Amino acid sequence: MQTVHDKGARREIKVVQRVLKVNERMAEENRRRFAEKGVFVVNVMSSPGSGKTATLQKTLARLMPEVRAAVIVGDVSTTHDADRLAVTGAPVVQVNTDAFGGDCHLAAHVIEKAADDLDLEAIELLIVENVGNLVCPAEFDIGEDARVVVLSVTEGEDKPVKYPTMFRTCDAAILNKIDLLPHLDYDKEQAVAYIRQVNPAMPVFEISARTGAGMDAWIGWLREKIKSKLKAKS
Amino acid sequence: MQTVHDKGARREIKVVQRVLKVNERMAEENRRRFAEKGVFVVNVMSSPGSGKTATLQKTLARLMPEVRAAVIVGDVSTTHDADRLAVTGAPVVQVNTDAFGGDCHLAAHVIEKAADDLDLEAIELLIVENVGNLVCPAEFDIGEDARVVVLSVTEGEDKPVKYPTMFRTCDAAILNKIDLLPHLDYDKEQAVAYIRQVNPAMPVFEISARTGAGMDAWIGWLREKIKSKLKAKS
Repeated sequence: MQTVHDKGARREIKVVQRVLKVNERMAEENRRRFAEKGVFVVNVMSSPGSGKTATLQKTLARLMPEVRAAVIVGDVSTTHDADRLAVTGAPVVQVNTDAFGGDCHLAAHVIEKAADDLDLEAIELLIVENVGNLVCPAEFDIGEDARVVVLSVTEGEDKPVKYPTMFRTCDAAILNKIDLLPHLDYDKEQAVAYIRQVNPAMPVFEISARTGAGMDAWIGWLREKIKSKLKAKS
Repeated sequence: MQTVHDKGARREIKVVQRVLKVNERMAEENRRRFAEKGVFVVNVMSSPGSGKTATLQKTLARLMPEVRAAVIVGDVSTTHDADRLAVTGAPVVQVNTDAFGGDCHLAAHVIEKAADDLDLEAIELLIVENVGNLVCPAEFDIGEDARVVVLSVTEGEDKPVKYPTMFRTCDAAILNKIDLLPHLDYDKEQAVAYIRQVNPAMPVFEISARTGAGMDAWIGWLREKIKSKLKAKS
């Protein structure tokens, strides 16, 4: 009995490794394509309900006068987030993963297809709002230039150490909903210490997408990243 | 090129279906075993940071004088939740999925092994706190008697329609952190309407694990479920 399960588990791990290897190849193709077109790609990930969409709405409103941007939004179901982001005026492509088995993440081949629906020549920034999930999206490179994780202060302090792959592989963390801090038993220093434990050099931007607090530092960081890519191209 | 991806996607879906089929068989074995021992099993799922652990701490504190309970806790990494639950006095088995590839859910064969570490003769209730994730755990039957999803009011209203499989396959929903409602732009009626849209008959328990508000109805529901299973056995 034991042997059967172990065989099953080993087989599952081998298959997952093969899927990730294929994904890695596709991600490199995406990366070449985006570089060729001079598009900076940021992959934004988080738990469900951390405030990714609200953060990106505010981010686009701030950046769009100066940067031509588009968005790919991943959800298992619904077009709620795409609808909310479309009001910014940016072109938005919605991917619903329940069309292909309810995938818990966006894979590189999905991004490749979604990007076909965008005029890459016309944009400098592509924001990918991934499926709300701290586990699976962390494992799938989509050909992005930067990975950002959004963490809400209502989720407790210890998510970075409970989901280490996500925090280890990201380039920046956004700590959202800080307007709620007065109403929570939340130890912000502990949360930042947990982030540093997993990723010592990671910049952490404390923001409230609701009130707009703290957006300057985050926008400044993103703007610098985009600029250095565009400079590298020209 | 297109063909290659489609072949890859089809292959992936086929593999996932095979994994789920094997899991289904193992779940049925678990279900038989738990029935034989007269153990009621509840599978508790949610996003990261919804307050599962706090809810289960309060639940155990209330139920344990009358029901002998144990817990299996799933996390990608750390033993934080197990440590928090162990203070209730219940036996707790921690499963860290990063030991086998960082799985995003608990599978039936994992529960089978974890249950080996518990004295099933000595308990009537087994609570499984699943990995924080609204996608993958929904697909994996672990041999439970009831499935419960915890949703925090800080996560927004639309999670039921964005993660429909989770809400369709659960027997009850807990709407947690209602003590924060005065500080949020949250439309509770809309959230409940979304739940009903996916699962019209689902009971929804509004609670605050922090203040203890609303725990009576939830505990009452769980107590009835346990009782009817124990009655069926005797």
